[in-house]
Amino acid sequence: MKLVTYRANPTSAARLGAIVDDMVVDLASFGAHVGHALPENMLDFIDLGPHAVAATTALLGEHASNWPLGTAVPLPNVKLLAPIPRPRKNIFGIGLNYVEHVAESSRTLDTSKELPKQPVIFSKPPTTVIGPGDAIEHNEAITKQLDWEVELAVIVGTRARRVSEADALRYVFGYSLLIDMSARDCRRAGQWIYSKGQDTYAPFGPVIVTADEIPDPHALDLSLKVNGVTKQDSNTRYMLFKVPALIADISAGITLEPGDIIATGTPEGVGAGRNPQEWVWPGDVIEARLEKIGELRHPVVAVGPVARARSE
Amino acid sequence: MKLVTYRANPTSAARLGAIVDDMVVDLASFGAHVGHALPENMLDFIDLGPHAVAATTALLGEHASNWPLGTAVPLPNVKLLAPIPRPRKNIFGIGLNYVEHVAESSRTLDTSKELPKQPVIFSKPPTTVIGPGDAIEHNEAITKQLDWEVELAVIVGTRARRVSEADALRYVFGYSLLIDMSARDCRRAGQWIYSKGQDTYAPFGPVIVTADEIPDPHALDLSLKVNGVTKQDSNTRYMLFKVPALIADISAGITLEPGDIIATGTPEGVGAGRNPQEWVWPGDVIEARLEKIGELRHPVVAVGPVARARSE
Repeated sequence: MKLVTYRANPTSAARLGAIVDDMVVDLASFGAHVGHALPENMLDFIDLGPHAVAATTALLGEHASNWPLGTAVPLPNVKLLAPIPRPRKNIFGIGLNYVEHVAESSRTLDTSKELPKQPVIFSKPPTTVIGPGDAIEHNEAITKQLDWEVELAVIVGTRARRVSEADALRYVFGYSLLIDMSARDCRRAGQWIYSKGQDTYAPFGPVIVTADEIPDPHALDLSLKVNGVTKQDSNTRYMLFKVPALIADISAGITLEPGDIIATGTPEGVGAGRNPQEWVWPGDVIEARLEKIGELRHPVVAVGPVARARSE
Repeated sequence: MKLVTYRANPTSAARLGAIVDDMVVDLASFGAHVGHALPENMLDFIDLGPHAVAATTALLGEHASNWPLGTAVPLPNVKLLAPIPRPRKNIFGIGLNYVEHVAESSRTLDTSKELPKQPVIFSKPPTTVIGPGDAIEHNEAITKQLDWEVELAVIVGTRARRVSEADALRYVFGYSLLIDMSARDCRRAGQWIYSKGQDTYAPFGPVIVTADEIPDPHALDLSLKVNGVTKQDSNTRYMLFKVPALIADISAGITLEPGDIIATGTPEGVGAGRNPQEWVWPGDVIEARLEKIGELRHPVVAVGPVARARSE
């Protein structure tokens, strides 16, 4: 299934939908029509566990192209939101997880040129999340080095505590696309949360594709353009720590919960790694693409006034 | 007000209470008796804003020592939980925020001996939180350097985006005590989340004291003992970035929301800074104390088996 969170019109509430043949099916309404209680939002659906994915997929298959009146609308008519508009905790980010990106980072940032021996984890607060098309805020009083990172996002489906690598993929609900915006000049004593954690720094979506449709998450092309020019172009096969290793490693100490998001790191081609370095500015447009998931397109806009923002 | 989250007995649901004269008053039940709708949990109460604190304080004052039957129980009869058992996002932690702790850290950890020019921010997932008396888990397969940090916790009361230092304290709901457990050998490429973010690494409580009762949060003694021996003993006046500066700084880029928790850093005396270094192990007991807030006491326990936990 391709699942989305959407508004049918600008004033209506956010709903959980499935995309079938360019139609968005309102899962709760559809379920009510066919005699099954289905939830109205993505987190509640994830909480139902993997059985619900299979059962809902089958139910949609039985009714495809014959939707009960009022339960489906054409995809172009809706406003897509981030698939999980409000995560229940900070997004887990993984740094330095593509070999060439480790090299480019060590040349221009303060990171080591050695490959990390364990996943490098950081976090992005729920307030970073924006949906497809939403503006990325640029506050020049805080950063003059705003950078891009295209990433595969893993959505956890089942509570995971100390799971093995061999079992780990069973804990995945699905996959999506996330841009890990990073203000390189906002790192502090090496900590990345202020660099990567500012409001609007996690464009996320447009859909979650359930794990049954992506048996191998390590064979997906991913790319990113700024103002139409390709900056990153790689494949998830080059990830250093693959999804099972990340889940096993994190869950060894930190319980993963349904709906948790792991942004799995970015390949080479970020602005900080270029010569000369490149940053995005208000007026720029960032487009990201992940095979089997889709595309995101976001304008960068100035925020201000900022006079009250900083005390120094 | 001194607010708590508690269970009246081991099988009952968590409730929001106020401590008055060694009694715990169930705010929702009390409110119903006196004709006011009061919420059943701390986050819902915080969401009501500062007016609710003043109004509820007045209401409790009118009825003190004359509680409607069934609305109050003696404090020793209840089980206290963390005041916010499940934060809505990761706890914000502040590193290197006491001068002497900066010095001790630079001698033995990988941090600079220079005082930070801006707050050093990291995060602890909601799954780190445990309540008074709960066990701190020690997984020897992951860490052999588990350390203590006693801290003043600030509870945000009102949504704060780009607020000035002068206004910042108006956004505070109250204060509490938090122990920032830190596995020193779990830092990765400088990132602290795995070091500070493991399950049970944030003992929190026993109460939230509302801000009206603590006009100056920078005049509070705080201390920590391991097995009865004092290891940390300082005062919040020695914080490098004070609470208003922290709120102004974080909110410049990251919107703070009601119920958000900022752990404001620890004074000197951590295990990593000692010669020889000291760590806690299963069987040890950690006690922390913060003036006007109270005390926490936590055993350290081994978790295992761990055979399936690590793939390397």
